[in-house]
Amino acid sequence: MPNREDVLQDIDQNFDVAVGKLLELISIPSISSEPAGEAAIAKAAAWLKAELDTMGLAAKVVPTKGHPVVLARSARTSGPKRPCLLFYGHYDVQPVGDQTQWKHAPFEPRIVEEHGVHRFYGRGASDSKSQLWTFIEALRAWRAIYGDFPADIIVLLEGEEECGSPSLPDFIKAHRQELECDVAFICDAEMWSQTQPAITTQLKGLVHEKVTISAPNQDLHSGHYGAVAANPIRILSSILAGLHDDKGRVTIEGFYDGVKDLPNKVREQWHELANEPSLLGEVDLTGGVTEEGYSPLEAMWGRPTVDINGITGGNQGPGERSVLPGSATARLSFRLVEGQQPEEIRRRFRRHVDARLPEGCSVVFDGIQGSSAVVLRQESPFLTATARGLEEEWGTPTVLRGTGGAIPLVEQFSNGLGAECVVVGFILPGDAIHAPDERYDTERLKKGARSWVGILEQVQLDMAI
Amino acid sequence: MPNREDVLQDIDQNFDVAVGKLLELISIPSISSEPAGEAAIAKAAAWLKAELDTMGLAAKVVPTKGHPVVLARSARTSGPKRPCLLFYGHYDVQPVGDQTQWKHAPFEPRIVEEHGVHRFYGRGASDSKSQLWTFIEALRAWRAIYGDFPADIIVLLEGEEECGSPSLPDFIKAHRQELECDVAFICDAEMWSQTQPAITTQLKGLVHEKVTISAPNQDLHSGHYGAVAANPIRILSSILAGLHDDKGRVTIEGFYDGVKDLPNKVREQWHELANEPSLLGEVDLTGGVTEEGYSPLEAMWGRPTVDINGITGGNQGPGERSVLPGSATARLSFRLVEGQQPEEIRRRFRRHVDARLPEGCSVVFDGIQGSSAVVLRQESPFLTATARGLEEEWGTPTVLRGTGGAIPLVEQFSNGLGAECVVVGFILPGDAIHAPDERYDTERLKKGARSWVGILEQVQLDMAI
Repeated sequence: MPNREDVLQDIDQNFDVAVGKLLELISIPSISSEPAGEAAIAKAAAWLKAELDTMGLAAKVVPTKGHPVVLARSARTSGPKRPCLLFYGHYDVQPVGDQTQWKHAPFEPRIVEEHGVHRFYGRGASDSKSQLWTFIEALRAWRAIYGDFPADIIVLLEGEEECGSPSLPDFIKAHRQELECDVAFICDAEMWSQTQPAITTQLKGLVHEKVTISAPNQDLHSGHYGAVAANPIRILSSILAGLHDDKGRVTIEGFYDGVKDLPNKVREQWHELANEPSLLGEVDLTGGVTEEGYSPLEAMWGRPTVDINGITGGNQGPGERSVLPGSATARLSFRLVEGQQPEEIRRRFRRHVDARLPEGCSVVFDGIQGSSAVVLRQESPFLTATARGLEEEWGTPTVLRGTGGAIPLVEQFSNGLGAECVVVGFILPGDAIHAPDERYDTERLKKGARSWVGILEQVQLDMAI
Repeated sequence: MPNREDVLQDIDQNFDVAVGKLLELISIPSISSEPAGEAAIAKAAAWLKAELDTMGLAAKVVPTKGHPVVLARSARTSGPKRPCLLFYGHYDVQPVGDQTQWKHAPFEPRIVEEHGVHRFYGRGASDSKSQLWTFIEALRAWRAIYGDFPADIIVLLEGEEECGSPSLPDFIKAHRQELECDVAFICDAEMWSQTQPAITTQLKGLVHEKVTISAPNQDLHSGHYGAVAANPIRILSSILAGLHDDKGRVTIEGFYDGVKDLPNKVREQWHELANEPSLLGEVDLTGGVTEEGYSPLEAMWGRPTVDINGITGGNQGPGERSVLPGSATARLSFRLVEGQQPEEIRRRFRRHVDARLPEGCSVVFDGIQGSSAVVLRQESPFLTATARGLEEEWGTPTVLRGTGGAIPLVEQFSNGLGAECVVVGFILPGDAIHAPDERYDTERLKKGARSWVGILEQVQLDMAI
């Protein structure tokens, strides 16, 4: 009778194959928020379907209004009804941004040895292709050794996570029965440190807004009219600069309506974590502004914020141009906590801008689907089983943490369907996700896959009771 | 004995040829501030040299550290020493900017009839290829009719005006003797209205600055670190928003040091002009901020200002990207009046930014050569002769006006060499210079060339006395 050790051994022995396949997946530039990424999205989806088919799951590429979902499930067994576990990952990636800032080509990953660590660089290396690969590899090995999966399995791989999951609500509505499960494991989150695993129990909501301010005139000669005509960059700068007061609080009227202060229990848990030197990795907070009255960790995980993600207007170079531009654009994102409604925040922001718009100027807003914050039940038996499984692999206690990030599917499943969700992952602060030279390492990939074996066993043991 | 009328008739009769050649010149994309423009700059210089040679001037293309100067002069005559007139224009153009904002291709000019006006569109159509073409065509016709020029003639066509004339000081130093003249006619300025000519007697100085603010980190995931880490866009917005107080005054310490209030005489002259509905053409000032205590015209021509010409940072689209960018850049230009020193203003601005930079953040400044303001003598006999010449063609009094624009050569000649300068031109506010769909019309081109015939005659008459 095979056992867990055999599965782990299978992962170790076939690790070079798993790494090779993952690098192949990372080399597909499946950027979901740019039209140019469309062909690569389709290619990545087809590639994943083929992989899932090979390992004994019946997979299909399900078209949506946007990018397709790869949906796979294990064959129905003839015996008694088994519990059903859903695994979620996303195969789309962020845009590359300014490619000149990358030292490594974003879509040509290979293993490089750096101070004894075997790293690979690439967009999606950490967020989130390695992540989804950990559970796929664990499921493959489990079935290879046991001849079957430990439960009914659903794998759901999304292609729109990095652009706000606009097609997800319709997809879930249309496939509600197919998605029925006892627990959804969401693998798109961070570890606590290089050596300590974590489960994320609290996620922020997210609203993106693009705002373009236009003056009554098109571009003008700034020498002639700069002293008198409206300058959209100046107006936009002033509005952006006024979004926070001198205590770091957001000035939008009603922004904090419905926001409750952090429960004492959570505050205490986080207080202990806040002393960890690994919390921020190599990120330097010097020069940043944290809302008065909150620790950085509380602000990151528990307080709503607004960030300016991009700004563009007038002359972009390379040379000088004496221009008073006709318009200027900023891109912002709001990170929401429990009690805030995405569309309400969007409305309040737009009202805030409208009220500050000089006469004669105009504004155009553009926004994509928002999501609410999620707070998961720390007492869920699936969560405690997962914590035990992680501890077996890592040899350290599992941290229950929050995050400033958002995963729209968790909101849809947890808030929308009332489904049990467990959010796990192996990202670290030093992975440079959403940034140039995004990276991951083979050690973490292997331990990630091994972690899922532990989790599967713990969940199976629980289920059997 | 031929007379002025014959010259004017020659211009009228050969006008189709002149227009054809000008459109050919405009079709050369001689953008001086972008490396990609280099070949076109060389092509335009060679093209102009050939044209000047053809019309009896000995022309040469003079290399500089930057873009070449086209320098031409009439043959020395054997008779008594004649007065020497220098004509200045520039053949370089502004960048195109966002090409999608152009309805007409920027470098494929052709005549289009619009409401009875024969227009041509293109970058440089107004600023400044039509301008230099007016005096070249007048000189050609004069010589064709009279067999000689009315005086010794120097033509100086610059290729770096739109990027701050960085090579001009060295060029002038090296060719000082060749440039000796009794008067320099600078043809790169505005008319007063569609029907009324103007001489510009007051020009602003100009300082360009590019400022890049960087946080201690490279790009970060804004969901994870937005609440706590420094955001260069937010810092930059705040600095830009703080450059003016609520009275529209620039807040940089010492910015107004040395600035004298406008003389009453000038204020009165301008006060009369301020009622002209044509002052702003189709430019709408709604939403603009004029410095308190000054009329728009006083602010445009007589008060120092700072304009934001461009801003860039973080995600530039097309899709959303949850990024906290590592840096953000703004481009600014300062328009100076008498009493302000370009390098001193630059220093004060940099000190202003440094003082507002959060700990841990860094700033890089980049600037190109600045120029001081120029106030020309309204009593100059060359100026009054020019005014009379213009009046003959247009049938209305010549306005003495100011401008918010800068022409570095005027500063070099007037402040530097103490040379007599007369600044004339036929640009109108509706020409969209420095903007998409820059334009000009054939009627103005013809009247511009004819104006120079009148000016040449008036100057000749004055000289003969």
